[in-house]
Amino acid sequence: MKLTILIHCPDQTGIIYSVTNFLFEKKGNVIYLDQHVDMEAQVFFMRLEADFENGFTKDSFETEFNETLARSYKMQWSYHLDGTLPKMAIFVSKYNHCLYDLLSRHRSGELDVEIPFILSNHKDLEYIAEQFGIPYYHIPVTKASKDEAESEQLRLLQKHQVDFIVLARYMQIVSSRLIQHYPNKIINIHHSFLPAFAGAKPYHAAFERGVKIIGATSHYVTEELDAGPIIEQDVTTVSHSHSIKDFITKGRDLEKIVLSRAVKLHVHRKTMVYNNKTVIFT
Amino acid sequence: MKLTILIHCPDQTGIIYSVTNFLFEKKGNVIYLDQHVDMEAQVFFMRLEADFENGFTKDSFETEFNETLARSYKMQWSYHLDGTLPKMAIFVSKYNHCLYDLLSRHRSGELDVEIPFILSNHKDLEYIAEQFGIPYYHIPVTKASKDEAESEQLRLLQKHQVDFIVLARYMQIVSSRLIQHYPNKIINIHHSFLPAFAGAKPYHAAFERGVKIIGATSHYVTEELDAGPIIEQDVTTVSHSHSIKDFITKGRDLEKIVLSRAVKLHVHRKTMVYNNKTVIFT
Amino acid sequence: MKLTILIHCPDQTGIIYSVTNFLFEKKGNVIYLDQHVDMEAQVFFMRLEADFENGFTKDSFETEFNETLARSYKMQWSYHLDGTLPKMAIFVSKYNHCLYDLLSRHRSGELDVEIPFILSNHKDLEYIAEQFGIPYYHIPVTKASKDEAESEQLRLLQKHQVDFIVLARYMQIVSSRLIQHYPNKIINIHHSFLPAFAGAKPYHAAFERGVKIIGATSHYVTEELDAGPIIEQDVTTVSHSHSIKDFITKGRDLEKIVLSRAVKLHVHRKTMVYNNKTVIFT
Amino acid sequence: MKLTILIHCPDQTGIIYSVTNFLFEKKGNVIYLDQHVDMEAQVFFMRLEADFENGFTKDSFETEFNETLARSYKMQWSYHLDGTLPKMAIFVSKYNHCLYDLLSRHRSGELDVEIPFILSNHKDLEYIAEQFGIPYYHIPVTKASKDEAESEQLRLLQKHQVDFIVLARYMQIVSSRLIQHYPNKIINIHHSFLPAFAGAKPYHAAFERGVKIIGATSHYVTEELDAGPIIEQDVTTVSHSHSIKDFITKGRDLEKIVLSRAVKLHVHRKTMVYNNKTVIFT
Repeated sequence: MKLTILIHCPDQTGIIYSVTNFLFEKKGNVIYLDQHVDMEAQVFFMRLEADFENGFTKDSFETEFNETLARSYKMQWSYHLDGTLPKMAIFVSKYNHCLYDLLSRHRSGELDVEIPFILSNHKDLEYIAEQFGIPYYHIPVTKASKDEAESEQLRLLQKHQVDFIVLARYMQIVSSRLIQHYPNKIINIHHSFLPAFAGAKPYHAAFERGVKIIGATSHYVTEELDAGPIIEQDVTTVSHSHSIKDFITKGRDLEKIVLSRAVKLHVHRKTMVYNNKTVIFT
Repeated sequence: MKLTILIHCPDQTGIIYSVTNFLFEKKGNVIYLDQHVDMEAQVFFMRLEADFENGFTKDSFETEFNETLARSYKMQWSYHLDGTLPKMAIFVSKYNHCLYDLLSRHRSGELDVEIPFILSNHKDLEYIAEQFGIPYYHIPVTKASKDEAESEQLRLLQKHQVDFIVLARYMQIVSSRLIQHYPNKIINIHHSFLPAFAGAKPYHAAFERGVKIIGATSHYVTEELDAGPIIEQDVTTVSHSHSIKDFITKGRDLEKIVLSRAVKLHVHRKTMVYNNKTVIFT
Repeated sequence: MKLTILIHCPDQTGIIYSVTNFLFEKKGNVIYLDQHVDMEAQVFFMRLEADFENGFTKDSFETEFNETLARSYKMQWSYHLDGTLPKMAIFVSKYNHCLYDLLSRHRSGELDVEIPFILSNHKDLEYIAEQFGIPYYHIPVTKASKDEAESEQLRLLQKHQVDFIVLARYMQIVSSRLIQHYPNKIINIHHSFLPAFAGAKPYHAAFERGVKIIGATSHYVTEELDAGPIIEQDVTTVSHSHSIKDFITKGRDLEKIVLSRAVKLHVHRKTMVYNNKTVIFT
Repeated sequence: MKLTILIHCPDQTGIIYSVTNFLFEKKGNVIYLDQHVDMEAQVFFMRLEADFENGFTKDSFETEFNETLARSYKMQWSYHLDGTLPKMAIFVSKYNHCLYDLLSRHRSGELDVEIPFILSNHKDLEYIAEQFGIPYYHIPVTKASKDEAESEQLRLLQKHQVDFIVLARYMQIVSSRLIQHYPNKIINIHHSFLPAFAGAKPYHAAFERGVKIIGATSHYVTEELDAGPIIEQDVTTVSHSHSIKDFITKGRDLEKIVLSRAVKLHVHRKTMVYNNKTVIFT
């Protein structure tokens, strides 16, 4: 039985010792430990994996951890047992490259998730859902229908007990309501190296500015557009010889790679969010 | 005798043929030709190198090129004969890494320029000028003295017939007057991947935003701060484990490499500026 | 009518002028010209695109080009008219990531080719061919059957008039016979930055050696294993914390991106082969 | 008082707990802990930094750590107290870029070392030593004098109590004798992405092979040429348009950056060597 624990709390002395001691007494063997202190914010972060060969009692573990450690160190913590796959919904519009990439990785066994459904405001990509045998819900969004559309989205998400959402080039702005239901659980891919070129048409803006590097950024969605905690970024070089169309083509490869890396980090519980930034334990 | 020609003009048919034909008749052998058409702006760019084994008459070449080609095609063009080294002034403040890098490249024969002097608003780096035996002018700049300081800079630049200026982490904003004397001839290094984090303290801003990639940008200086035509950019990855001090240390290596690449491109006349962007012929 | 011409010949004066002059007289407008001289080998390379608005007569063009230019300059040259899609066969074994990537690009309209069939020595990936509605031929290969299997491959390739072959992680060594039928027309992806780790199990070898960077290489297949002309390479960083399994996972992303870039370069006739190396016009 | 501890031992349960417990009882506060398990080799690695505010007794710490932990876990371990700068000798031949880079970093306070001397088999770079005010020993090496030259090198190294040696493009092969005196303490920079192009003239070999990426590798020197544990690698792209001279110029920038990164990792005791590979704690 493998347990993954994520902790953050105000920095102080003795935390690593106290936690490893607690696990030792519970007969858990620490097989991975990574830790980080944000010196500016004086916050301590830790990610631990421990093996419990002799069994593990969920309730008593949680209670005792809270009483022995979490309370005194003012920890925010979470833990996860191996075994159940998280449920990931995918939202798309009309671009297919990220969707194809996620689904072919899933089919190859590279992504440890269940995908209960794909949701879109357009019908364009339904054929891909069919290729991969995954339910596809078409919920059109207009100014007038936006509120109702979102209620329907929420019903679907709840019905399928979705754990997190991937916006795989979903071209709609997600509302507060959805974000509040899924705090740091909606992963977006933006087609620029944020904070440069936030908002619409970043490749056009990059071309206009004459940059020599373009990028893609995957981040958790927050209420401020394209301003959430960054999970992963990557870039590629461009030159005067590339047209906007070339930027878009080169960018597609960045987007799908960066998004899939971010999804994997999230799935493996290697991300922690603090002060609108991420700690990524690799 | 090697001649380098740079041309840009409205795009139309027959330009490449006309220019190579002209050179052929002058007994010039084209040894390099690169060309680019900006399809959006409908502008044609070309860079040519030609060998003239049987001699070359400067005046008649210029006159005939103008009459035969430049007028009818509405060309803006320039040409350069191998042989004379361009004169490069270096402006610095207190950071030494870019200065050390430029001077050690120069001493190694890697930079085909003359360096008539180094100029600074501080005395801090005079010791490096002494190490390398290059004159160092200390011209302090205060709000009150800024105008007079700049006049003195201009006198020095003109006296030494400086061709272009490198701002090697010169922390002052350069005035319109200087920029107008050296249009597209002042090369700056900015310590971010522009347009992200223009202005002061970009590493602090990058840290605050939680980016996973930091960069450096070398560009020609225009009147709008950090908004001139980009010559060269590069980036490096960072993580939550890096402090602002780490960003600065990693950034130093980017800055010096990116600046030196931009300087070399300029020296070898591989840059053309158009619509606040560069065409870089490599 | 757009024409693309690829030329290489011994370097001498006047080639660019002569070719552009020839096209000018045929009323072709040069819209792209890139040229390269290998100074060591004294070989001249050129890639040209020309527009023929007033029509183009294939036979007379070929004859006259040969008589006027090719003979005197000892050119090897080829030309291509826009319009017909090249036919690309894909060979696979059991790994699906490159196949998924190529097919989803094709379906998205990103790859300007026809795919008459997928061929494999295993049945494993037939389901993907079905997902995308492309014929799948299963031709098992054993030591005893290798010769016969290859004859069958050749029959299929010829029947479908295949122009070039992509080995998308096809784990078999291709024989001389096939290579001779498709010289510089079989594109392989090798999962290392060649020439490091040629041959079998490169990720295991890279792990063993403790490298900090792994790569992928796409190259034309020649008779010497993994030693053909390199079209494209890319790398990614690794560390001690990555297992061989991690190398393989990270490598998959490299492989599919590098292979697709190489295929696109080939399809757009941007590659020329000389002295077991490539000239890539971008 | 800050203490850095490096440990490796056969992997077993309870190590992290035991070490952090030991430090806790000594009133050391763990401020950094990174750990790694090589699953193939079943070896555990750990790097710890601990603050001892209430003082630290060197002798008793060492004895007790050995008796309580090192013996039972079969640890190989070392520890280091902040405060003394390691002594770094630099060996060079005729190329100056790595030397300039190291010395300008040192002068800028970026390298926390003392540099007692520079040693060379040529006089060429003496002027740089003079620029930076560092002793320069010229010890010519010929086939006949190699043995005697090395004895003189060893005398100098021992006289100056040198801790580690940087071969900053020292073009001589270092003998077993020197390597045995400085095991995993001689850092070399090789101008290729090893294991590709080991040995002499790697840029020529890379050009010949037509690679699209060149690299540089910094490694600890072992008796087998260019086969020691790799500390750091980096690469840059090249194309057909680059000559061997261009490879060399681009490579210089890689070499100096990669070497300086490796030196810093060594100085900050972030490297551990095992099975001819490195564990790099960042």
